[in-house]
Amino acid sequence: MCELLAMSANVPTDICFSFTGFSPRGGKTGPHRDGFGICFYEHGGMREFKDYLPSCQSPIAKFLQDYPIRSKNIVCHIRQANVGDVNLQNTHPFHRELCGKTWTFAHNGQMPIESVPEPTHYQPVGTTDSEKIFCWILSELRNEYRCGTAIAKVSAFLLTLCNHLNSLGVSNIILSDGEDIFTFCSTKLSWITRKAPFGEAHLRDCDVSLDFAAVTNETDIATVIATEPLTDNEKWETMKSGEGRMFRDGLCVWRDYGPEVIHKKRDECCKSA
Amino acid sequence: MCELLAMSANVPTDICFSFTGFSPRGGKTGPHRDGFGICFYEHGGMREFKDYLPSCQSPIAKFLQDYPIRSKNIVCHIRQANVGDVNLQNTHPFHRELCGKTWTFAHNGQMPIESVPEPTHYQPVGTTDSEKIFCWILSELRNEYRCGTAIAKVSAFLLTLCNHLNSLGVSNIILSDGEDIFTFCSTKLSWITRKAPFGEAHLRDCDVSLDFAAVTNETDIATVIATEPLTDNEKWETMKSGEGRMFRDGLCVWRDYGPEVIHKKRDECCKSA
Repeated sequence: MCELLAMSANVPTDICFSFTGFSPRGGKTGPHRDGFGICFYEHGGMREFKDYLPSCQSPIAKFLQDYPIRSKNIVCHIRQANVGDVNLQNTHPFHRELCGKTWTFAHNGQMPIESVPEPTHYQPVGTTDSEKIFCWILSELRNEYRCGTAIAKVSAFLLTLCNHLNSLGVSNIILSDGEDIFTFCSTKLSWITRKAPFGEAHLRDCDVSLDFAAVTNETDIATVIATEPLTDNEKWETMKSGEGRMFRDGLCVWRDYGPEVIHKKRDECCKSA
Repeated sequence: MCELLAMSANVPTDICFSFTGFSPRGGKTGPHRDGFGICFYEHGGMREFKDYLPSCQSPIAKFLQDYPIRSKNIVCHIRQANVGDVNLQNTHPFHRELCGKTWTFAHNGQMPIESVPEPTHYQPVGTTDSEKIFCWILSELRNEYRCGTAIAKVSAFLLTLCNHLNSLGVSNIILSDGEDIFTFCSTKLSWITRKAPFGEAHLRDCDVSLDFAAVTNETDIATVIATEPLTDNEKWETMKSGEGRMFRDGLCVWRDYGPEVIHKKRDECCKSA
């Protein structure tokens, strides 16, 4: 399995705490040592940091643990390669421009690349099934909707596309246009919303705690989405197979369900993306 | 004026020396304090580092001066804002995918944004004339050529587009698909090719020298392109207005000229992008 991490917040918020717990899974507490990427939307723009080195060793990942970048929408991925070599072109997240917005996609799953429908508009740069899936989703959006349609309005359409992918193989998805974060659970995805009254959280993957009450304002709201819960003393919500959710300003603003799919070779399928 | 920097090399080469001389121009030895961006093509992929902070102060720029990333094609920009606010969406370089390649664009110049032809295919995310120019150039390429056409073969077409832009205002350009680097001089652009026998170079903007003989192999070739020469003890070539050049594997592989344009309000025009 590779792993996904995202954050939606109502005020620019850094992800240093979560990233400190997430990055060891890239080669130390987890096997996802084939590169990482993290992108931050800020002021309508986006910047990203990527490495083909394991996040547990990468000097860039270390830099980011200590350098707080505040953003309302963050998407992150650590990779355990299956389809596609270990290199930057196959390192998630992927990006494309649609309607003057930079869209970002991170994926965890696997399906035969030839089973992914051909994208009509965007082309993959690398060789992963994941990037082809992204190009197909965005091509379908471009073909189906005019610019200016809010992502929240296309949620049901995205869910239909994701459920089709889910019938082809494992396909957990995080997709953002910088304002909303769409999530789809094929086999494994959890989330937690933190708001007042804030408490203390303790990471699963390293002995680090943070008292959120000391670093937040009372009106702050942030949701963290991850393949596996990052803390061991908080209650995370578990999404079910076929479930889609949309997060904006730290809150879940939409959810719906498609048919549940039980992937028989779940463990095998998940060593991907 | 903002300033441009690029490198083409025949083997993956770091740009730490040039970047050490270039980044002080972002707020210390030069006025281009409105953000910077640098992108590295590696193994068919690309990664980029951006900040809206001045490159002379940015912790990310400092990190990069000390962290050698080896690449055959690098594009960098420091910004002095004129059109468009100081934020990440207006920070160069810009990127779009065309034919399964990530194209990168950095620009120095200014023209009335409404005079830039409307792009048919790509849309700007930010509000600069520069990004609109990029979207127009890439749209025209997409409309004119099939995928698979080498960038070297479209050089003459690019030169025609750039000369049209040069008639509208100041427009110095660096454009790359990750294999070739196309450069166009509207008012100011220099370059130097370093190959054996290598010598010692001394930066203009800070008292730092490097003996290239000590850090290269005999077959290494690298060309550095910059708005202003970065060293004070080497001979840089100066491009003339209307001149286009294509660099690949460290060497200039194509050049041609359009009509020379004298921009009357040159100093005023150049406070841009």
